[in-house]
Amino acid sequence: MIKKRIAFSSGKTDFYFDAFLIDLLLLANGRRLIVLTDTNVFEAHKRKLGKLECMVIPAGEANKTQATVDKVIGELVTKQADRSTLLVGIGGGVVTDIAGYVAAIYMRGISVGFVPTTILAMVDAAIGGKNGVDVGIYKNIVGTIRQPEFLLYDYLLLKTLPHEEWVNGFAEVIKHAVIKDAAMFTMLSQTKLTIIKRDKVLLHKLVMCNAMIKIKIVQLDEFEKGDRKLLNFGHTLGHAIENMLSLPHGHAISIGMVYAAHLSSQLVGFKKTMDLIQLLEQYELPTHAFFDKMQAIANLAMDKKRLKDTLHFVLLQKLGKAIIMPIAVNDLEEKIQQASL
Amino acid sequence: MIKKRIAFSSGKTDFYFDAFLIDLLLLANGRRLIVLTDTNVFEAHKRKLGKLECMVIPAGEANKTQATVDKVIGELVTKQADRSTLLVGIGGGVVTDIAGYVAAIYMRGISVGFVPTTILAMVDAAIGGKNGVDVGIYKNIVGTIRQPEFLLYDYLLLKTLPHEEWVNGFAEVIKHAVIKDAAMFTMLSQTKLTIIKRDKVLLHKLVMCNAMIKIKIVQLDEFEKGDRKLLNFGHTLGHAIENMLSLPHGHAISIGMVYAAHLSSQLVGFKKTMDLIQLLEQYELPTHAFFDKMQAIANLAMDKKRLKDTLHFVLLQKLGKAIIMPIAVNDLEEKIQQASL
Repeated sequence: MIKKRIAFSSGKTDFYFDAFLIDLLLLANGRRLIVLTDTNVFEAHKRKLGKLECMVIPAGEANKTQATVDKVIGELVTKQADRSTLLVGIGGGVVTDIAGYVAAIYMRGISVGFVPTTILAMVDAAIGGKNGVDVGIYKNIVGTIRQPEFLLYDYLLLKTLPHEEWVNGFAEVIKHAVIKDAAMFTMLSQTKLTIIKRDKVLLHKLVMCNAMIKIKIVQLDEFEKGDRKLLNFGHTLGHAIENMLSLPHGHAISIGMVYAAHLSSQLVGFKKTMDLIQLLEQYELPTHAFFDKMQAIANLAMDKKRLKDTLHFVLLQKLGKAIIMPIAVNDLEEKIQQASL
Repeated sequence: MIKKRIAFSSGKTDFYFDAFLIDLLLLANGRRLIVLTDTNVFEAHKRKLGKLECMVIPAGEANKTQATVDKVIGELVTKQADRSTLLVGIGGGVVTDIAGYVAAIYMRGISVGFVPTTILAMVDAAIGGKNGVDVGIYKNIVGTIRQPEFLLYDYLLLKTLPHEEWVNGFAEVIKHAVIKDAAMFTMLSQTKLTIIKRDKVLLHKLVMCNAMIKIKIVQLDEFEKGDRKLLNFGHTLGHAIENMLSLPHGHAISIGMVYAAHLSSQLVGFKKTMDLIQLLEQYELPTHAFFDKMQAIANLAMDKKRLKDTLHFVLLQKLGKAIIMPIAVNDLEEKIQQASL
């Protein structure tokens, strides 16, 4: 087990890499531990989770709503959970987002820890303290930024992860490579998912490296005034089409990254769009979709990254180097049409 | 106008005493300003509020629910409010609590200011950053602690405040006196509500003095690890009976203070219970109610001040001096029966 204590401006978080689920009992340290998980994770790990006090929500992004939060809060009230209770979210990004949000608002804040069970949650969603729920088609429109007490990584939990969820997670891995780490881009292009899945050492290295990329960006800019925005690469258009087309998050982001790369070549002379497309395809990710451009742009108008009539778009100067450029919402339509293949 | 800038650990808040509603436009400083208010306040101040972009919720504690929050969030989405929008809650404690909570969670946090329009909100509810909603009969079970950007006090808004709301607010004024300011207790006992309502200078002094008592306690202990708990004097039993008996907050707290004073005389030899009862009656507040003691104690079990099986009860040593004493929930029944008149 590798422990890293990370100080964020609003509090510190302990990261336990290469650990085991059972270590949770040590981390609870006598406190009452209540687990939030979803039907998929509970079914897949029934033997281990059955021993803990669990609240189980239905799996899937469609359940990342206030209605689910209301139900979980109601259950905490019924269980007479108090301020000393430790809530632990065990699952993918939907579970950790809801656990983090519920813990932020229940009795004005209780302790929370996460055990991410997907690649996406391990390298991205569970890190950085952002939490929240969707409102209609608008993603994460409600939530807070609040750091968990700890994250625990148990790679054994990945054994039951469906292959499409591995693919989903690698969209964020590739995103980290293109915005921050050209060497990782090269490394990824020299291997493939089936190899990584089998090689526990490589997997551990890759997960930890990606977690640290995200951690460092969040550390420097917890409340997204500057560099944290770079993590939104591919997410502006990605979020606009994700719920509209009911895409998995990784697929939406993959397509969003391709559009953002095309925009980058138009606006700042980025030259590696084809390399990015090739890598995404190598990791079985889609790089194109047919969608209603006008509707997508209407959705963009509600993006949290919008300030008045301007969107802060993340573009690539080169592999490993991203920048933020304000683009007027009114100009976007033309640019997105041009960026279409 | 008297401006006081108060630094809390999580941010600073500007207090503008003796100001005018119209000063809001200066405080918005070019930002889009959206007002949250309730039907009572909107009707009473239609001429002034009609000029602003308003969202109006139904008046009353019964609407301090997640359903109201959902509706307000939906309206902000429809209005395409963004992260640069300034939300201003104009109203009593229900409005400022909901405005503060919505601002804490909408797009993971937007700026918020309050214009309290009741005595209760001016001296207590709008100060200190606590916000939230009720879940069933449990008060404030969901919420955050987050400081507003500013509070603006316009005493002209009190002109339309119903007399029973003045009475309601003076329960918290008397609470401040008994826990922190024996001189104010004496002063209050030498005058009465009808005089204070007519004397603008006295009113201003009293409001500012009470606001500063609350501010100082919050400043020292924003996240309620210690002294802030003293503000809960009368609130433990008060909250337990407030929604159960559908009492106005001030009435519930008044009755709660009497019970807490009786407990204080039992447990720490407090001698001024009759003086407190007399002052509460002088300010037209109830000092007794018939209620189901067992149900009240069952409600207490969900009080946020409970940790495991112990409640942190606020007791009085003498006028102006309160202390916190842990009492086992199991012992409470007997003590509350004894404290009954």
